Amino acid sequence: MATIVFYSVRTTQTTTRRCFSSHLKGLASAIDSGLLSSTPGPSSTLLPETRWFSRGTSLRFMSHGTAGRSASGQTRRGALALSGAAAVTAAAAVAGFLANANHFQRAEMATKVSQNQEQEGDIVERCREFMSPPVTDISVLQGRKEEMSTKMEMLIMETQAEFCKALQKVDGGTFKVDRWERKEGGGGISCVMQGGKVFEKAGVNVSVVFGNLTEEAAKQMRSRGKVLKGKDGKLPFCAMGVSSVIHPKNPHIPTVHFNYRYFEIEEEDGTKQWWFGGGTDLTPVYIDKDDAFHFHNTLKEACDKHHPQYYPEFKKWCDRYFYVRHRGETRGIGGIFFDDLDSPNKEDVFDFVKSCARTVVPCYLPIVYKHLNDSFTDEEKDWQQVRRGRYVEFNLVYDRGVKFGLATPGSRIESILMSLPLTARWEYMHEPAKGTKEAEMLEVLQNPKEWV
Amino acid sequence: MATIVFYSVRTTQTTTRRCFSSHLKGLASAIDSGLLSSTPGPSSTLLPETRWFSRGTSLRFMSHGTAGRSASGQTRRGALALSGAAAVTAAAAVAGFLANANHFQRAEMATKVSQNQEQEGDIVERCREFMSPPVTDISVLQGRKEEMSTKMEMLIMETQAEFCKALQKVDGGTFKVDRWERKEGGGGISCVMQGGKVFEKAGVNVSVVFGNLTEEAAKQMRSRGKVLKGKDGKLPFCAMGVSSVIHPKNPHIPTVHFNYRYFEIEEEDGTKQWWFGGGTDLTPVYIDKDDAFHFHNTLKEACDKHHPQYYPEFKKWCDRYFYVRHRGETRGIGGIFFDDLDSPNKEDVFDFVKSCARTVVPCYLPIVYKHLNDSFTDEEKDWQQVRRGRYVEFNLVYDRGVKFGLATPGSRIESILMSLPLTARWEYMHEPAKGTKEAEMLEVLQNPKEWV
Repeated sequence: MATIVFYSVRTTQTTTRRCFSSHLKGLASAIDSGLLSSTPGPSSTLLPETRWFSRGTSLRFMSHGTAGRSASGQTRRGALALSGAAAVTAAAAVAGFLANANHFQRAEMATKVSQNQEQEGDIVERCREFMSPPVTDISVLQGRKEEMSTKMEMLIMETQAEFCKALQKVDGGTFKVDRWERKEGGGGISCVMQGGKVFEKAGVNVSVVFGNLTEEAAKQMRSRGKVLKGKDGKLPFCAMGVSSVIHPKNPHIPTVHFNYRYFEIEEEDGTKQWWFGGGTDLTPVYIDKDDAFHFHNTLKEACDKHHPQYYPEFKKWCDRYFYVRHRGETRGIGGIFFDDLDSPNKEDVFDFVKSCARTVVPCYLPIVYKHLNDSFTDEEKDWQQVRRGRYVEFNLVYDRGVKFGLATPGSRIESILMSLPLTARWEYMHEPAKGTKEAEMLEVLQNPKEWV
Repeated sequence: MATIVFYSVRTTQTTTRRCFSSHLKGLASAIDSGLLSSTPGPSSTLLPETRWFSRGTSLRFMSHGTAGRSASGQTRRGALALSGAAAVTAAAAVAGFLANANHFQRAEMATKVSQNQEQEGDIVERCREFMSPPVTDISVLQGRKEEMSTKMEMLIMETQAEFCKALQKVDGGTFKVDRWERKEGGGGISCVMQGGKVFEKAGVNVSVVFGNLTEEAAKQMRSRGKVLKGKDGKLPFCAMGVSSVIHPKNPHIPTVHFNYRYFEIEEEDGTKQWWFGGGTDLTPVYIDKDDAFHFHNTLKEACDKHHPQYYPEFKKWCDRYFYVRHRGETRGIGGIFFDDLDSPNKEDVFDFVKSCARTVVPCYLPIVYKHLNDSFTDEEKDWQQVRRGRYVEFNLVYDRGVKFGLATPGSRIESILMSLPLTARWEYMHEPAKGTKEAEMLEVLQNPKEWV
């Protein structure tokens, strides 16, 4: 997750008034797309009607009607604003500088297609479909419509809403929406559904943070080869992103993770560095080759629209990144992963990131629907729990975002560790017998495959 | 865990023959002590009869009779010798150099009492009560009886046997005994009981490893302030230790952890550096002030025999070491923790470490027996699982031994991660309500107390 932008956020008096719910162009249609409606699931429910109230310098959010648990959004906001200041996005963003530096060159690739010129519609109208008002005041976003920070914040909010709503539809449960503020600048929106009918734990987090990079972070950037000079050692930055981990109950439905982020940093002489990062990857408990093909192929098609090398390069990068070294296995069957993407230009890379973000639902939801009613044994559930243990190992030992977040004072720990499963298991000397489905899964994790 | 010794282990032709079981002086008496027999528990069972056979240059181990699962010791040995080479002890030992360097001076304390001059008996006879033959050939140990490496290896093997047998007695289950060898030198003995009646997961691990410190490890030592010069950059070392984590099923029985280790390293000019480290600490799910007093007071009495400052200093050190920084809480209610103890002399420090190792059973077992039949609710079990999650967080994110072990190629991962609970839970935004027993526990973890 990540972006740096240098506007100073000063909340202006807004005149935004009560609006009524309408459908977000592009997103609602994706949710209700043939992809989803052709598969069995609970009947479509109306999305919660939301209302917006202007209260002085900031907008407050209130949802009601069918919103269920998310109706407590307003109360939670106050509680969290007091308790949690977080740097989770900044954390992942800054951490993005650290690893893989030796393995990968910057993806200096020309973007092939940049035809995504669709009309995005009015900001206020688009915001109505979000899980919560955006982190940045709507009036500020309206005032700088053409800036990348605005475009990206709108995209990550839309991605969060689209994904949450698709998950709510299949599960029947409702996401709990927490808004939190970061003392040093910015904040985030965490959407969590726990103990649902289909999902054991589902988290979709947005954060938009800004401030100055600490000396430690700046040093880590230098060690990666980027020499960045700040004013008096300080580097103003802005980082934003959306990230999500979904752990289903049924061991035949895989865990999915995605993360898309934008980062900007300003040097002493006013030079602005910017880059995008992200990826989507799948962690099944049992291997299903059709699922693997569907998942990878959907990503490949999105990538191919922009550059023929994106999918093959970012697929490899993903396998390398999600590697649990001490176990000699990957976390899952991969997908795509990229970082430091800053060419050929901001708009083209943004278009690519937008394509990726919009494949999240079509990558994952068909797999969920396909296995929704699969029966499973206690042994299969146990194997799932053992695999969840490995997921925890990766996230706590290797994940750059988590490591950086935990080491950053003032981080919102609950958002960083939202990615951990509800339950996990560690059996001593657990080794699947040869020829079992469990051994087959392990073999794939030890030897990453080409799926497309 | 840790020790470095520079003997070159050459297996000599032994003439050791079949022996018969007898009781280890001091240990059997501790197991059957009034402390334990005064509390309710399953009736005492005879310890497994063990036989030893000389086979050429090495001794082989065979247990039978009532040994249950451990009867497979011989087969396991072969299997593990092939699969697992480990540096877990070395890992923890070397890691002992790394942290806390700023916080603690070396414990330059004079040992007050060194009266532990009891006759230890014949090595072969003492070895009969171990869970497995020692890592080092018995003939080698006999040939250097007076060296610290022998004394310490005997102590850690005795501690493992004493503790395992005390746990087996209360649980009714049997430890699975795995011998493993380390390609680079040495090996270990892992005893694990999983899914017992009382214990969800219990691990007691011994390791004795030697070889050369890598450049990385040597560098880490230098960063701590110790400038160690090796021959061609290599520093011969030997590290040995015993470590254990016990996770009971009943949430009213706390988790316990202990670790005692010895480390030796040889510099270019032949100078030998040596030191001891260790500690015992308790992690309850609910606070019981009497348990806390008993645990800390037993440790304090053992410390006070050697130096009046040991308990207060090492109690503080323990609270600082087992701190989950990102949660702002300690892992448990502490105990003692020390490292780099190398004064006034080897024998006196060893006597202190021996006193500590011998308090493990009297510290913990009375608490186990006291709560053996406590009833508990589903909510209490859930809270235990949430606390187990925090235990995992500490072990994977902060524990020096685990971190170093995972980063060391060739480590025996199963022995390093043996400390993880069988099951754990992560609930988003879990916050105990005010005035509950759960909130009371949290308050203690956020504000470490004096218990004695």
